[in-house]
Amino acid sequence: MTLDDLPIRDDLRGRQPYGAPQLDVPVQLNTNENPYPPSAALIDDLARAVRHGAATLNRYPDRDAVDLRKDLADYLGHGLTARQLWAANGSNEIIQQILQAFGGPGRSAIGFEPSYSMHPIIAGSTSTRWIEGARDEDFSIDVAAAVQAVETHRPDVVFLTSPNNPTGTALPLDVIERIVAAAPGVVVVDEAYAEFARTGTPSALSLLPANPRLIVTRTMSKAFAMAGARLGYLAADPAVVDAMLLVRLPYHLSTLTQAAARVALAHREELLATVGTLRAERDATVEWLRHRDLSVADSDANFVLFGRFPDRRAVWEGLLEQGVLIRETGPAGWLRVSIGTKDEMAAFRAALEGILG
Amino acid sequence: MTLDDLPIRDDLRGRQPYGAPQLDVPVQLNTNENPYPPSAALIDDLARAVRHGAATLNRYPDRDAVDLRKDLADYLGHGLTARQLWAANGSNEIIQQILQAFGGPGRSAIGFEPSYSMHPIIAGSTSTRWIEGARDEDFSIDVAAAVQAVETHRPDVVFLTSPNNPTGTALPLDVIERIVAAAPGVVVVDEAYAEFARTGTPSALSLLPANPRLIVTRTMSKAFAMAGARLGYLAADPAVVDAMLLVRLPYHLSTLTQAAARVALAHREELLATVGTLRAERDATVEWLRHRDLSVADSDANFVLFGRFPDRRAVWEGLLEQGVLIRETGPAGWLRVSIGTKDEMAAFRAALEGILG
Repeated sequence: MTLDDLPIRDDLRGRQPYGAPQLDVPVQLNTNENPYPPSAALIDDLARAVRHGAATLNRYPDRDAVDLRKDLADYLGHGLTARQLWAANGSNEIIQQILQAFGGPGRSAIGFEPSYSMHPIIAGSTSTRWIEGARDEDFSIDVAAAVQAVETHRPDVVFLTSPNNPTGTALPLDVIERIVAAAPGVVVVDEAYAEFARTGTPSALSLLPANPRLIVTRTMSKAFAMAGARLGYLAADPAVVDAMLLVRLPYHLSTLTQAAARVALAHREELLATVGTLRAERDATVEWLRHRDLSVADSDANFVLFGRFPDRRAVWEGLLEQGVLIRETGPAGWLRVSIGTKDEMAAFRAALEGILG
Repeated sequence: MTLDDLPIRDDLRGRQPYGAPQLDVPVQLNTNENPYPPSAALIDDLARAVRHGAATLNRYPDRDAVDLRKDLADYLGHGLTARQLWAANGSNEIIQQILQAFGGPGRSAIGFEPSYSMHPIIAGSTSTRWIEGARDEDFSIDVAAAVQAVETHRPDVVFLTSPNNPTGTALPLDVIERIVAAAPGVVVVDEAYAEFARTGTPSALSLLPANPRLIVTRTMSKAFAMAGARLGYLAADPAVVDAMLLVRLPYHLSTLTQAAARVALAHREELLATVGTLRAERDATVEWLRHRDLSVADSDANFVLFGRFPDRRAVWEGLLEQGVLIRETGPAGWLRVSIGTKDEMAAFRAALEGILG
């Protein structure tokens, strides 16, 4: 008995499970994790919160995660309230819920690639037709071309990303505004890496009051260094949150997840302090790679896309042999390195130096 | 701006979010929770496990939850291994993943109603056509009728439930076997309440070796008293698990969820000790209700369906006024009460006595 013998959906046949290799190597720079583990003070508070929550673990969690949504609104600012926030198990589940409400059979979604690979994958698993939009050579979005693509295809869901993964490219607000104006359906701005953006880079959150069909998604996996806790969220018009209530699985967010996210938000000053360090390390990495005469995409995220290598697989393997795991992703010839600690980046540079000769 | 102004899917229009009222009343007997909170020893171990897991909370969780699946296999026995187990955020997510792999647009699923209301709801959100099969007057499944329904409609997914919610009815193995033999696709036996079954009630787990298209789903919300931790799972052929890997959202199960479930499994002797108490309380409740000349469905679960009331809403409200929250569900005229502690059931009986006069 194999997968091929099972009556799975035709569109799943021959597919491989998504996911970067989870290899146990000394320097892990492949999944854009934050390299800084929680502090002892945060862990103390988390253990205390879990003890408190555990006392009623026999009961279902708050189905609407009201307290957490209040805390998330407070963190985001921009005059947002809990009614405009929604949370789920990672931004992947947020994306899935958005597509379950606004996409699905007979509907379509567009993204501008290369971009976050889960957008088309979740479009597929929700039977939403995927339309592949394009980016410019420098990975920016040509607004006229994007508007034209939206007007031609009339997608029900538009995915924008700022900063974009895997390129690190942020979007100017006027690009988002013009695409929202052209879009017949909802527009999602995936801001998973927003906290890492360079000074002066605006957030699409500021566009929410004027645009009720705009949805901004965020995650606590990156800047908040909570990838293991799985907490993604969105900010949008309260009506969009009402739509999420129709498609969410009841009690989707555990008592422990809600508690952990609230503890992390309470410790945000400490957690976000790592962001400054990582931004500096990122900028130094960009500069160093450029000095090696490599092509390097401008980055507003906690990773850097660089290339172009005639045989990127060989470079990726060469780094791995030296205990440095990065990601073979992006357009042909490019590689992506997540920003780690000072020591991890030194190890990356030393290993790459050895390969480039 | 309201939900109606948004471009949501047509099949969602006019729908209300699913869910029992979450009311703060003294006696909560409405969502089949286990009334016994975790012990101090379990909470200690949980806090310790969370401390341990929190040290790497900046990293993504084990995407395949290998250790947890080993522990689940060990708990279920029946010669199962981790390769045959799969876990997700509650059995609702398990059901969603099954329908994403084996259902979807152009496909159909059947259930025998009244049954777990999330089966048709998740069929809907995965665009799987729902076929409503029937039960006998006594809530059992007539095997000849069920086989005929399966042969007529040729559903891609068959949902069976043993014990069934909201009726408490368990299924004989030969009924399952005959339906599996007739089904062209996969057959899911939802055993969320299996641990509460009366002595001698078999589990469909024993049918797995001979039936690679059979899937048995379970949860830690009920017998394990972990509704707040959200852990559902399935046991099936390894090829079915491979199918789940194609549709699961990467890193769907947090480090904390995996840790909490493993702690609960380690404490299973203590947790499952509550099952015996609840079974005795259930049998006493059935007997008491029958002595009141009410109709009562035989129950192998931690709840009892009873009736029939010309105005069940009035009875439900009368109980609520006295601080006892039960569930208005099941066929017209019936009500469902979850089994609570001795004191909670005494409060339920006293309140109902007052209403029945």
